[in-house]
Formats: sequence, C-alpha cells, structure tokens
Amino acid sequence: MTYEAFPGEGRHVPPCRKIVCIGRNYRGHIAEMKANEPSEPVLFLKPPSSMIGDGETIVIPEGIGRVDHEVELALMIAKGGRRIEVSRSLEHVGWVAVFNDVTARDMQSEAKRSGMPWTLSKGIDTFSPISFPVPIGEVPDIHDLGIELSVNGARRQSGNTSEMIFAPEEIIAYISRWMTLEEGDIIATGTPEGVGPMVPGDTVEARIEGVGKTTNPVRSA
Amino acid sequence: MTYEAFPGEGRHVPPCRKIVCIGRNYRGHIAEMKANEPSEPVLFLKPPSSMIGDGETIVIPEGIGRVDHEVELALMIAKGGRRIEVSRSLEHVGWVAVFNDVTARDMQSEAKRSGMPWTLSKGIDTFSPISFPVPIGEVPDIHDLGIELSVNGARRQSGNTSEMIFAPEEIIAYISRWMTLEEGDIIATGTPEGVGPMVPGDTVEARIEGVGKTTNPVRSA
Repeated sequence: MTYEAFPGEGRHVPPCRKIVCIGRNYRGHIAEMKANEPSEPVLFLKPPSSMIGDGETIVIPEGIGRVDHEVELALMIAKGGRRIEVSRSLEHVGWVAVFNDVTARDMQSEAKRSGMPWTLSKGIDTFSPISFPVPIGEVPDIHDLGIELSVNGARRQSGNTSEMIFAPEEIIAYISRWMTLEEGDIIATGTPEGVGPMVPGDTVEARIEGVGKTTNPVRSA
Repeated sequence: MTYEAFPGEGRHVPPCRKIVCIGRNYRGHIAEMKANEPSEPVLFLKPPSSMIGDGETIVIPEGIGRVDHEVELALMIAKGGRRIEVSRSLEHVGWVAVFNDVTARDMQSEAKRSGMPWTLSKGIDTFSPISFPVPIGEVPDIHDLGIELSVNGARRQSGNTSEMIFAPEEIIAYISRWMTLEEGDIIATGTPEGVGPMVPGDTVEARIEGVGKTTNPVRSA
C-alpha cells in the first residue's frame, strides 16, 4: 500500500477507494427530515474526489438550490475485511475523523421524490470536508463523544455519538456483509439533528470532542 | 501513480477510485423499465470493491430476490480533469472495457419506491464484472460497436453503442462538471434493452465488438 497526501495536509494516509455513508442514524435527524426509522443501516456512497481538508473551501455550483451541512463521525479502515463480526469490527478501524456530509438538499429531495439516485446531490467536488484522521487509540471512547457544528460561530448541530441507532460496530459488520472493506476506506456514521443550509460567505466548523475539527469557508463557483 | 493488478488479471492498470455509472441511456432499456427519458445523464456510483475480472464468479447473497445482468461499454480515464469540454473529452480516456452492471433488481425497486439510495442493490461484492481494458486507440469507433450479452449461450441483450442517448463525450463532460475525474476512474455508459435475471448455475457472457468479453459463472453465497 502506497500512502498518499490527505486533503489539506502534508501528512500521508492510505488512499481512499470508497466512502460509505449511513443515512438516518440519529432519531433527532430522522424526525427533522420527517423520515422513518430504518430497520437496517441505510448505505450510500460519496466519491473520494469530493473530499477536502480542514481550511479548504466548500464550492457551491450555480443553480443547485439549498446546500446543507451534516456533521458526522468518520471511521477509517486500517485492516480490510469482509463479513466482519460485530465483536471484532473495531479492530479494523485505524483512525477516526470529523466529516461534513455536505448535501445539495433540493437535488436530493427531487431525486427521492422520483426514485432516482442520490449520488449527484452528495458527490460534488468539495462536498466532503474531513479533518485529518487521528488514531482510534488516542480517542477515549467513540461511543460517547460530543459532536457539533457551527456556522459563523453560531451552533447549529449538537449531539453525542451515543445517540446513534446503529453503533459503529454494527455499521462495520453490516457494510462488510455486502461490500469488502479495504484499507483507507472511510465510513461516515450519520448526522445528528440540526442540519441546515450554508450560503456563500459562511464559515462552517464541524467538531467532535477528542477527535478534532474541520473549518471550511463557503463560496459560490 | 502506482499501478495495481486488475481483477482477474496479472496485468496492471491505475487503481480505480470511483466507478460512475449512467442510468437510462438507451431508449429500449428505458421502455422495458417503464421509465422516462432523462433530460440530463443519470449518475450513480458503484464501489471499486465490487469489481471482478473475466472468468471470476458472480456470487449472489441469500434472500435478495431477483438479480439482473446489464451489459455496458466502460471507459477508463487516463488523464484526470474537471470541467472537461465535450470536444476534448475523449483525450481523457485511455482504455475501454466490457462491463456488466449486475443489479439486485428487487432491492433497487424497493429503494426507488421509497426514495432510498440504490447503492446496496448495485454495490455488492462481485456485482461489477469487467473485461481487461484495451487501449482506446485499438478500438475502431466507440460510437458504433455491437454490444451483447448471453446467458448459457442464449442471447439476451443486443444493441449498438450508437443508440446511446448521451454519447461518451457528453457523459464525460457532464460528470466532470460536478466531480473531478481521476486516472483509473471507470465510467459505465448504460445498458441496452434485454436486461433480465441470472440464477446460480448460469454462465453469463458480456461482449462488445472489438473490445472483448467477460464470461462469469453465477453461484449463490
């Protein structure tokens, strides 16, 4: 495995082949989206090309309507595997990071309404800000971390990773039932309530206790 | 760029960071799916972990219902770029290949009905058989190639790449408006009519004139 420069950093990590995201994993967010609680984790992909690092700019293309922030705890795989058992799943995680699952909400809503893929609404360049990953051994307990996001210094999202419906172990086991996880893959574990729009000129800071932060200005294309 | 072994082959190509697929790009397939013709290309992602090579086995997990074949012309990017112009887009393509966009149709239909992501129905391990890529310069004209698929020797899909609604040049330009294309990325350009189920014990052969073939047995997990 050849390591590569992480977005926004000179340091190096394994290259990312896929970003698997979990939808509807906090009850507060499900309620605000007027959605139903899932019986199994809801999976979707973002392309690695959408990632930017701390300090880099979220660029919103013209004419796509509302664009929302969604702060999430990200897990980065150190040891690949398939059909990973819940009880051993955290052994496959090398690092954790703060992820902002930027979403073109109007595009996503239209896609949902017409049964079309969500891909484009989530996959645009710069729509995956992520902090530099920290070794999981340096984080006290990923199951009990304050997670929050502010826009221009005003708090918009605030929760705790203990509120997840599917815990990180269950998510890893579920994904790897279907898809082989590879070194460098990133898993974004869902967002707590408080998602809302960002507009050009804003500065968005996503932060997780004991993990770090990513601060990103927003501009139009 | 460090090259890596292509699925099923000892030869090496750039590693794939994303597979971007185009839905609804042949009118015959749109009609058989009772869908509407799109005004812009419909994009979705498959994970690189879903790829297998010629001769490798498509493995169908238990309990997921109907699983379909979809033969497609795949383009592999040699030179990355963003906001690529239609007129220069083929300069970014290094290789072409035969792709089978294996789809868990019942899972996809349920996802469409409820406005959920299609990801899982398309992203399962072994659900992206692909032939070894051939240099685009060795293919006479990618706009006029017979494309077909047979199951156990009986032809199921038959068409021509000239029937695409959005030509390869338009697809590359469209994707790169939103997502940076990187060396090794794969673009699957949609399937002609005749998609249908595969069951364990079948052998599926996807073939494109002048490009090659991928032959894959099917078994249950």
